[in-house]
Amino acid sequence: MNPSIINPYYDRLPGSYLFSTIAKKIAEYESAHKNADIIRLGIGDVTSPLIPEVIDAMHKAVNEMALKQSFRGYGPEKGYDFLREAIVRGEYAPRGIDVASDEIFVSDGSKCDVANIQELFAADVKIAIPDPVYPVYLDSNVMAGRTGTLDQVGHFEGVTYLAANAQNNFQPELPQNPVQLIYLCSPNNPTGTVLTRETLQKFVDYANRNGALILFDGAYNCYIRDDALPHSIFEIEGARTCAIEFRSFSKTAGFTGIRCAYTVIPKDLAKLHSMWNRRQTTKFNGVSYVTQRAAEAIYTEEGWRQTNEVIDGYMATAALIRSELTAAGYTVFGGEHAPYIWWKLPDGEKSFDFFDRLLARCEVVGTPGSGFGPMGEGYFRLTAFGDHERTKIALKRIKERL
Amino acid sequence: MNPSIINPYYDRLPGSYLFSTIAKKIAEYESAHKNADIIRLGIGDVTSPLIPEVIDAMHKAVNEMALKQSFRGYGPEKGYDFLREAIVRGEYAPRGIDVASDEIFVSDGSKCDVANIQELFAADVKIAIPDPVYPVYLDSNVMAGRTGTLDQVGHFEGVTYLAANAQNNFQPELPQNPVQLIYLCSPNNPTGTVLTRETLQKFVDYANRNGALILFDGAYNCYIRDDALPHSIFEIEGARTCAIEFRSFSKTAGFTGIRCAYTVIPKDLAKLHSMWNRRQTTKFNGVSYVTQRAAEAIYTEEGWRQTNEVIDGYMATAALIRSELTAAGYTVFGGEHAPYIWWKLPDGEKSFDFFDRLLARCEVVGTPGSGFGPMGEGYFRLTAFGDHERTKIALKRIKERL
Repeated sequence: MNPSIINPYYDRLPGSYLFSTIAKKIAEYESAHKNADIIRLGIGDVTSPLIPEVIDAMHKAVNEMALKQSFRGYGPEKGYDFLREAIVRGEYAPRGIDVASDEIFVSDGSKCDVANIQELFAADVKIAIPDPVYPVYLDSNVMAGRTGTLDQVGHFEGVTYLAANAQNNFQPELPQNPVQLIYLCSPNNPTGTVLTRETLQKFVDYANRNGALILFDGAYNCYIRDDALPHSIFEIEGARTCAIEFRSFSKTAGFTGIRCAYTVIPKDLAKLHSMWNRRQTTKFNGVSYVTQRAAEAIYTEEGWRQTNEVIDGYMATAALIRSELTAAGYTVFGGEHAPYIWWKLPDGEKSFDFFDRLLARCEVVGTPGSGFGPMGEGYFRLTAFGDHERTKIALKRIKERL
Repeated sequence: MNPSIINPYYDRLPGSYLFSTIAKKIAEYESAHKNADIIRLGIGDVTSPLIPEVIDAMHKAVNEMALKQSFRGYGPEKGYDFLREAIVRGEYAPRGIDVASDEIFVSDGSKCDVANIQELFAADVKIAIPDPVYPVYLDSNVMAGRTGTLDQVGHFEGVTYLAANAQNNFQPELPQNPVQLIYLCSPNNPTGTVLTRETLQKFVDYANRNGALILFDGAYNCYIRDDALPHSIFEIEGARTCAIEFRSFSKTAGFTGIRCAYTVIPKDLAKLHSMWNRRQTTKFNGVSYVTQRAAEAIYTEEGWRQTNEVIDGYMATAALIRSELTAAGYTVFGGEHAPYIWWKLPDGEKSFDFFDRLLARCEVVGTPGSGFGPMGEGYFRLTAFGDHERTKIALKRIKERL
């Protein structure tokens, strides 16, 4: 094969995907320490089983697939109406948010949607992304050739970075350079902090004023414990003319292994609504019927109660991590409206060095902050998705051995 | 939003996706004829329920997801080893084909994979596609800006079309212009015809000689009834250095509603193997665990027997369509090694006119050949996925009323 036929932009990405690198480090440690008892507070994966209401719905859907009269083949690429309507009733209507079911596109994951959405935009569009943040926004744009190369700081040329750190209370400033696509993530992965109504209004006004678009990742919205904080970008006045929202069942209902998410494109953005419909009907074939019935089930009264019981459990773990680390004299952020704790490392220690030290001394795994962008250097992400009792042991080790 | 930020290439695509257009026509007919009894032999969707072996595996997997100790969160983006190994054992090893499990990437659909694969290639790469063929190969390249505009014949500027018709026995000639990416589909959708070993060898030799790559869609390989015909591109000498293969459980095991497929990239194509891995780990999050266990189940002895019983049933319907239409004096192709019958329309009738006539006179739905490319004009696709008895009624109506 002639090498000139290759997309040249993939090679601009450094090494492998963050979590692959970390998995390799852990595997190396384990093979060198046969009796290791590693506690994983690293990758953002859930550990609680699916709730009974979801399990029942899945068995029922599987049974339907066994009979000719109830078998379902290709479903609508945008998702079944029963699920899109349940999402409106369960997520948006209770907060009085104006989102209609035909503005919802069900998919097999927010990772896919936030990575694919950039296809709708011109090759020369300028993007702004938070720093630190979930790496997929940036990586998908690098792969599409929408950036320059990586500089020594760890920034890609041509990208506007929106710094979020303790100094600005994790509320990024508006971009200084002209940009057309702005990624926001709230509650933020990895900092666990929430963008305030004031911050979001500022960004929405900026976008409407400048003809820009906000790509709002709300994958962790169900962890927001304060009703007064914005759960959706569409709670902000003017957002329907400048924003797309991404949400997921992964962290809401433990669907990381069965795959379901959705993207909301308001009909006010008619062109993008129709382009995404074209993109999905051409390049995607819908989500498993069994999974869609599973997702619908979290919106029954009992399903919602069970779902929130699991979320409350994770948030109890988050509170434990916060209080124990604080009591031990560390500074931490997040963990109050998000399953992530953003740990400020003492004495300017590099986050990958800290990863190694934490693994060696405590056999605890977290995620180095610098993996989420240069501004994440000096921080470390712990997640509240681990088993509560195991997390207690991890915190005891940290206090005693670190 | 400033319209200049939009990807300009989507607008080069004509109207909506083929099957959406047809669904609209049917809905219009139904609303005008309340007592219509339409028989659908149009869209290529299966109708037989999932086999018992698959249903059992799904229930078992759902039960695992209900318990903390057996719950599975994120799986490997490439698919679980148990499935990748089962595919090698069930699909490739029995025919002596050299494919290893780490060359297999499991996904949620071949439509996604054949649409996404073009991302790995440079923007100026020249493509060749069969005419007629499944529209996704072309559409995904149009959306990426890899073609010019549509001409009056219905061809996109800059694309090389490989004509397949009765004159050349549905065995396309090698491209006359230099191309770097060649899509092939065998058994072909929509013509239902199979590329011979000689044809495939010619294309493989061409690709290796010219540094080109073959993207081989084998979604219908399980319908090939003749062991001597090639089932996989990797049965052809030299293919490992110039070909990628796409396969699906949709038509093999009726998974259109639960979503599973796979793509084979030989390690001989090391750069593409690693780029696709990067693409999938960055933009995809794996297939539902329940679906992967379902797919694995078709490779048990009993699962394989049940799977082939369903396929035999569809092929009996294909044989019926062939023989009845032939007896009625029509010329048909395909249907011997594929679930598609390619019906040559008499007297040069336009395929969309024929669609309307068939619907109005017989209340039977098929797919206009021109929807698959200009060379499909004058042909019409029927599928063998419908209920056998209902298909009999459809054929009776055609003989009596058309």
